[in-house]
Amino acid sequence: MRLHGYFRSSAAWRVRIALNLKGLDAEHAFHHLRHGGQRAPDFLRLNPQGLVPALETDDGPGGGAVLTQSLAICEWLDETHPAPPLLPGDARQRARIRAFAQAIACDIHPVQNLKVLARLRGLGLPEAEVTGWARWIIADGLAACEALLAGEPGPFCFGDAPTLADLCLVPQLANGRRFGVALEGLPRLLAAEAACAALPAFRAAAPDRQADAE
Amino acid sequence: MRLHGYFRSSAAWRVRIALNLKGLDAEHAFHHLRHGGQRAPDFLRLNPQGLVPALETDDGPGGGAVLTQSLAICEWLDETHPAPPLLPGDARQRARIRAFAQAIACDIHPVQNLKVLARLRGLGLPEAEVTGWARWIIADGLAACEALLAGEPGPFCFGDAPTLADLCLVPQLANGRRFGVALEGLPRLLAAEAACAALPAFRAAAPDRQADAE
Repeated sequence: MRLHGYFRSSAAWRVRIALNLKGLDAEHAFHHLRHGGQRAPDFLRLNPQGLVPALETDDGPGGGAVLTQSLAICEWLDETHPAPPLLPGDARQRARIRAFAQAIACDIHPVQNLKVLARLRGLGLPEAEVTGWARWIIADGLAACEALLAGEPGPFCFGDAPTLADLCLVPQLANGRRFGVALEGLPRLLAAEAACAALPAFRAAAPDRQADAE
Repeated sequence: MRLHGYFRSSAAWRVRIALNLKGLDAEHAFHHLRHGGQRAPDFLRLNPQGLVPALETDDGPGGGAVLTQSLAICEWLDETHPAPPLLPGDARQRARIRAFAQAIACDIHPVQNLKVLARLRGLGLPEAEVTGWARWIIADGLAACEALLAGEPGPFCFGDAPTLADLCLVPQLANGRRFGVALEGLPRLLAAEAACAALPAFRAAAPDRQADAE
């Protein structure tokens, strides 16, 4: 397998964690998003969305394809390599885990990604307003995530092992810190992050451990 | 089951289609998003994210919960009521269907929803810039969706029956029209929409057929 990513991309980071949790090796191809690598013709042929991550899978049953969208890639990894599960439990529990992941991957991250912030700058907004935008959507979204975990046993988002929810949470908290979001009102999320930080699968996936880290 | 929605919400519309395709009845509770119904205390107790849809499920195995996030709800419906499948095929095909759905549900819709457009207005941008923002993200995202279907047999997004991809496509095309996006360069998407329009499950889910339609 070959994962196309960028060290700082939250979405690629999620997939790196998933690969590590599953104990899967992948070759890594890095595309510099701040230099427009995701819009290079060769990459657009792989993923017409011009976004990382994209996963080139090995040939074989269910493989031999270019998969896109981090959550779809994680679900594919979970279907083709079920242990350990990223979506454990019954249908209700799986729905709650997916909803938490989507509260980040749909309602926070795409509203504060590079493309959106560049558009805000292009509209003439000063840098303080652009950073304020990112802080607003992250703070608002993470507060809802904290509430979504009310009553869920820890130490991870959903119980005693990491799930798709933790894969999304850890990169989003890091983004929050980069933009100066106050996180101290989110004790449940920070406890889940601490539980993840103890695991080699999460540590090896961190941006500063990638070959293209700056 | 009880679906909390709003006639014009793209995300609630997706779930209405899914319920209809599965032949499931649900009671409908409507919350007027333009009047802040999603931030009423009673609704926030159901869904701390303050977003529609939310699905109150019946008691029973895997049920008796409040489920949130439209794609997570659709996956739950597919797991608990498998026929007809919203995610047919092998792991690779399911990954492609999920990626298409997420290209809309993550990368288009949350960047042009009411909350984001209201924030742009709050930053002092004139209405033409706000509408232009919505047109930009929808046009850009739908062009990528058209490319994602290259080589996929129709008439629906992925073959001869509707999937999770079509559930996301139809409401997003309607949003595109509301904002004046030029759609004529998207023949494959329009053909899938036409195939959906022939199905009662899609017709009955349309905003103008809901009890709260204006």
